[in-house]
Amino acid sequence: MPSASTLQELFLSHLQDIYHGEKQILKALPKMAKSATTPELKLAFEKHHDQTEGQVERLQRIFGLMNKSARGKTCEAIEGLVEEGKEVMTEAQSGEVMDAGLIAAAQAVEHYEIARYGTLRSWAEQLGMKEAAKLLGQTLSEEKQTDELLNKIAMSSVNRKAA
Amino acid sequence: MPSASTLQELFLSHLQDIYHGEKQILKALPKMAKSATTPELKLAFEKHHDQTEGQVERLQRIFGLMNKSARGKTCEAIEGLVEEGKEVMTEAQSGEVMDAGLIAAAQAVEHYEIARYGTLRSWAEQLGMKEAAKLLGQTLSEEKQTDELLNKIAMSSVNRKAA
Repeated sequence: MPSASTLQELFLSHLQDIYHGEKQILKALPKMAKSATTPELKLAFEKHHDQTEGQVERLQRIFGLMNKSARGKTCEAIEGLVEEGKEVMTEAQSGEVMDAGLIAAAQAVEHYEIARYGTLRSWAEQLGMKEAAKLLGQTLSEEKQTDELLNKIAMSSVNRKAA
Repeated sequence: MPSASTLQELFLSHLQDIYHGEKQILKALPKMAKSATTPELKLAFEKHHDQTEGQVERLQRIFGLMNKSARGKTCEAIEGLVEEGKEVMTEAQSGEVMDAGLIAAAQAVEHYEIARYGTLRSWAEQLGMKEAAKLLGQTLSEEKQTDELLNKIAMSSVNRKAA
């Protein structure tokens, strides 16, 4: 994905990568919400879908701040992660196993995003892009909160039922 | 990657997935260490290579505890992440940009592993696999420490130089 000789180009290529990723996630989340059987998990996916729409808008603002048009770049890693969620949905034989697998797939996606937004925010700071760094920090906080929420849901009910 | 109808099957399929992942990472780390220009980063990749060998052994012990032979399962996500590190190595035009890109790729891999080992440890606990849960917890701590170390290296020198 990166094709870059300066930090600014590296920043832009990673921004395009996560922009593509967020769009894939936007498409996947309604299906994951539909497949989830635990009400808290269904709600968490629905809430995160709305949150992701705001995150896409933040990315568009950052492209704007750089005078670049917002466009994504195919990223095999995120496609593999989203694919995993789809496989869980077709293969799980019980609701509990479905939920455990969906949470695992979603947390892998969240951690991918935590790594990406952490890197992007740090680079934005180094490049003196204060507004972009602030926007990226907001999204980073949301991704961490989502990961923690999924942890809580997994620990409290899903895993216990699936065992 | 998952093909599972019970939590135990889900556990096994994710174990095979991360086993494949660790083997890919073992192959990539020496190349990343060779490409890194900051001495601390070179050292961090070398140290993590040795650590990864221990992590592979822990996974083999867990396969043994389950009376299964240790085998990996291709995982597109981890292959995409490792591929990203390779692209950085061919495309970066300066040592500083190389290091910034390598750290970004390595942190994405670390976060993938943090998500996977967190999930696996939680499932091992639910399945009453205490020894496996302990081993997975040890690796999880190592991955988190590696991510923090990469953060420190990035913040202290690499990003500043690349800007």
